[in-house]
Amino acid sequence: MNHRDRVDNFNGGPAALPVEALEKAQAELLNFAETGASIVEISHRSKAYEAVHQQTKALLKELLEVPDDYEILFLQGGASLQFAMVAMNLLDNEHTGAYALTGSWSKKAREEAARVGRVRTVFDGAESEFRTIPGVEQVVPAPGDAYLHLTSNNTIYGTQWHAFPDTGEVPLVADMSSDILSHRIPVRQFSLIYAGAQKNLGPAGVTVVIIKSSLVARAKAIAEEKNIPVILRYDLHAKHDSLYNTPPVFAIYLMGLVLEWLRDHGGVAQAEARGRQKGKLIYDAIDNSDGFYRGYAAPDSRSYTNVTFNLPTRELEQAFLAGAEENGMIGLGGHRSVGGCRASIYNAVSVEACERLAEYMDSFRRVHG
Amino acid sequence: MNHRDRVDNFNGGPAALPVEALEKAQAELLNFAETGASIVEISHRSKAYEAVHQQTKALLKELLEVPDDYEILFLQGGASLQFAMVAMNLLDNEHTGAYALTGSWSKKAREEAARVGRVRTVFDGAESEFRTIPGVEQVVPAPGDAYLHLTSNNTIYGTQWHAFPDTGEVPLVADMSSDILSHRIPVRQFSLIYAGAQKNLGPAGVTVVIIKSSLVARAKAIAEEKNIPVILRYDLHAKHDSLYNTPPVFAIYLMGLVLEWLRDHGGVAQAEARGRQKGKLIYDAIDNSDGFYRGYAAPDSRSYTNVTFNLPTRELEQAFLAGAEENGMIGLGGHRSVGGCRASIYNAVSVEACERLAEYMDSFRRVHG
Repeated sequence: MNHRDRVDNFNGGPAALPVEALEKAQAELLNFAETGASIVEISHRSKAYEAVHQQTKALLKELLEVPDDYEILFLQGGASLQFAMVAMNLLDNEHTGAYALTGSWSKKAREEAARVGRVRTVFDGAESEFRTIPGVEQVVPAPGDAYLHLTSNNTIYGTQWHAFPDTGEVPLVADMSSDILSHRIPVRQFSLIYAGAQKNLGPAGVTVVIIKSSLVARAKAIAEEKNIPVILRYDLHAKHDSLYNTPPVFAIYLMGLVLEWLRDHGGVAQAEARGRQKGKLIYDAIDNSDGFYRGYAAPDSRSYTNVTFNLPTRELEQAFLAGAEENGMIGLGGHRSVGGCRASIYNAVSVEACERLAEYMDSFRRVHG
Repeated sequence: MNHRDRVDNFNGGPAALPVEALEKAQAELLNFAETGASIVEISHRSKAYEAVHQQTKALLKELLEVPDDYEILFLQGGASLQFAMVAMNLLDNEHTGAYALTGSWSKKAREEAARVGRVRTVFDGAESEFRTIPGVEQVVPAPGDAYLHLTSNNTIYGTQWHAFPDTGEVPLVADMSSDILSHRIPVRQFSLIYAGAQKNLGPAGVTVVIIKSSLVARAKAIAEEKNIPVILRYDLHAKHDSLYNTPPVFAIYLMGLVLEWLRDHGGVAQAEARGRQKGKLIYDAIDNSDGFYRGYAAPDSRSYTNVTFNLPTRELEQAFLAGAEENGMIGLGGHRSVGGCRASIYNAVSVEACERLAEYMDSFRRVHG
């Protein structure tokens, strides 16, 4: 709040992080925990780093209420590498990877898996231009499915799953890169959750994988049978507690600071409450605009982390974005693949920032509507 | 130099970085390049990040004198993922990966490749307990080799290649994680160089790959034939200028600051001169100790980035390490797989730090020898 030079940051990712976490990282960047060295200069086998590693894992476990029979891994390569690793570790010759397609990222996940094994599509949102999330009854696993994969939130189209299918014996796998920690989720319903860090978790460069221990065992058997490189095996990283090779130390460290901030600000329950409040501010500005702002997502599929909308013309959108920047609001352009506008309102974006955006939307409409 | 709370850092990696680079990162951590946001909060598609990305590439190209027909990639996963990617991208059914084994890392590289395709060993240092590097005449490629792989510097045993084989038509591939930028290398002699960042380049979390364009083309044909996941393909990352997915922004940014520092301090030629001076200080302390300190590496194979040595007894080694810490020198323990002592003297370790270490070695010997 004392940082008047900092903007209201609505970037889609990498995205806003809590200023308190950044300030702590800044203060100790040259001398971490009295080691006389930076966190990026000490061994990943040192006691000082080991404490960071374990504390960050413990915070994730606490905040997400991860059950004891799940492993938490810190990997590299982003969600994009997980698209491949999921299939490499979980697909054998007898089973099929089932995919619910709700946008670009889930399509990419399916495409990558198709290079590794057999896949099928259980839902395809293309016919609704990816404006909708299916009802859980539309997403039904089949007996031969190795897993059912979904993308919990779609940053590009601004849609989000608000309920998850019960897939019974078939492991439910979810890419939660863009909404992990934004609202409470029933971890027990999933066998594998993965998330690139660069939204609610921290900076780009670390990927969190939360995987049921029984699925690690199955992945081990499959990986051994297929003899895949060890560095791409979940069981290897689980066995070595994500320290088989040098982890992305700074990204994990800063994620830890972000998680501390979240814990100190009411945890996921409060993040969810603030998220609803923030989303409502912007969706109200859309819904009360007499059609000047048009939300992209179908109302019941709306995302509370990425609000996507269009203005009547491309020229107005450009004027809107330029005016926003002049008012200290950045990152409001839509994804380069679809254009339009998008307000990404991850955990570190304040309610006040969303109020300012909603006010700006109202005043822009009064002038140009 | 004004940081009296900072220690002399001889860590093997992650390791010492230039204090000037850390200070710059610290100063602008909350507001990068007047964007009003941290470097970790801005889009990897933004102009501000794009400038960092291109500048860092340009600095590497300049400092290493990389020819124009090479691509420079910024990947994730460390050298350990490169062990797999090299084989996945370069090994087809008709060719063999040839490996010169000079220590633990080259053995791991070979093991990982053996999971992907056919490999052979052209040199095995095990018989000399990895104390020696082969003469270039001992490392001869065969007509059916897809590539010849070597590890230019061996952090664990403290050995280093001082000349490289001419492999003719067979691509020479090198893991240079621990000595890249420490001395001038004939890049043209190599078709692929890779390096995890956490020694001379920057913080853990980014891996540099320098690959000849003609080898990218060959890798593309092999990857398409084998239909490997796109995220593991060199040609995909080359095509997208390492921006196919979100790169590890902070690690690349800090690497850029480290490279600026190196450029401003005489580049690789001066790093090499300082490296010789630093190495000589410590090797002299060993060689003039009447056998109290015993260097692990054979003299003609000695590394100028990792100096490995033993004391007469394990107890003396423990006392030596404890005394060093009391004198503000950290990271001098040998790798956990071999024990003993190791002084890693990467680019950011000053001549003065090495002088202090050499003095400490002399005085410890006078008391305990």
